[in-house]
Amino acid sequence: MNTHPDPSPRRQPAPRPVRLHGYFRSSASWRVRIALNLKGIEVAQVAHHLRRGDQRRPAYLRLNPQGLVPALELEGGDVLTQSLAIMEWLEETVPEPPLLPADPLARARVRAFALVLAADTHPLQNLRVLNALRDLGLGEAVVGRWAAEVNATGLAACDALLEGIEGPFCFGARPTLADICLVPQLGNARRFGVDVAAYPRLLAREAACLALPAFAQAAPDRQPDAE
Amino acid sequence: MNTHPDPSPRRQPAPRPVRLHGYFRSSASWRVRIALNLKGIEVAQVAHHLRRGDQRRPAYLRLNPQGLVPALELEGGDVLTQSLAIMEWLEETVPEPPLLPADPLARARVRAFALVLAADTHPLQNLRVLNALRDLGLGEAVVGRWAAEVNATGLAACDALLEGIEGPFCFGARPTLADICLVPQLGNARRFGVDVAAYPRLLAREAACLALPAFAQAAPDRQPDAE
Repeated sequence: MNTHPDPSPRRQPAPRPVRLHGYFRSSASWRVRIALNLKGIEVAQVAHHLRRGDQRRPAYLRLNPQGLVPALELEGGDVLTQSLAIMEWLEETVPEPPLLPADPLARARVRAFALVLAADTHPLQNLRVLNALRDLGLGEAVVGRWAAEVNATGLAACDALLEGIEGPFCFGARPTLADICLVPQLGNARRFGVDVAAYPRLLAREAACLALPAFAQAAPDRQPDAE
Repeated sequence: MNTHPDPSPRRQPAPRPVRLHGYFRSSASWRVRIALNLKGIEVAQVAHHLRRGDQRRPAYLRLNPQGLVPALELEGGDVLTQSLAIMEWLEETVPEPPLLPADPLARARVRAFALVLAADTHPLQNLRVLNALRDLGLGEAVVGRWAAEVNATGLAACDALLEGIEGPFCFGARPTLADICLVPQLGNARRFGVDVAAYPRLLAREAACLALPAFAQAAPDRQPDAE
């Protein structure tokens, strides 16, 4: 008798996502919008205005005690948080079209690229951190330079990771989690005045993505709460 | 004919990990040490002294252009980076014992917990960021408070995510990626003077982990480069 549980994810009917709690400009929300579009899943969008602090209201903290967006509500009431965890869940429960390659080494490269942006770049320049820097008495010019440098450092690392890898997408013929993290980060980088022309390889990947309706329709200015 | 590639990870013989590039005190290296120990994989450790800037030397940047540890070298020369991507690769290539539960929803909860620490906490208080704050002219007391607050915020969110979940480990009877991220983060929190007694639930999980040799032997003070 095998007493070990099967470690591979079960392919069973999963609860359907029904509501995405997000904010038009949040790049973590933007990632999940792209992933849902690629998987062909329609959800209702619930906007939480981050600059007004909607995400720290008690009703939202009951959904996500971290007080951050996005959160994906499923039928039955379960709530998923953290954009990468949400996208891995989508990948495991709605396998087509895949957002990760099949080979473990190739999967590791895609995830590493995604994490350079989702762990080492975006969290250092999101609204919460920039406000914390302002609270330390740093001026707008200094805070803006911080955000720009964080973005430039992350994009330069990602550019190096694509050395010798064929497009049109970051890791070949299909968009993956890498592309889903790249497109919103380039949006942030431009917003903070980074000279993104320094990364022609990344811009070529972005152009391939934006030619797909799943990416184009997830853009901040196409969302119901866009300002 | 099915023209879609199989999206599930292939269970095929994978190249064996041979060298872990890390630093005794780096919590991302610490995570990978725990995961390798849990999987029963022995590797040579190569220490890169972060405070002396070893990770920015050209020879290391050829392994990992991001200039961060850890990096896992495989036989054949491939190099994996980003601790969570490395651990997902380990999970896919060496399934036993599993570091993630089988159910997709349970996997999403484990990954979200891990990302609260690996994306929203640790990158805001690592050496690179604290040095960047010092470069902005902030004093040691202010920088220390920043690191402590970042840790306290992350631990409080993780504590809330465990509400109603049975131990002894973060998500039940086995250690998962959540525990692997928690133990090093608690180490950091103590180093920055956080009152970790405020999180008895997290401390109970940590105690269960540290009773396992895989966790105990991965501690910074047990590494060859410990100071």
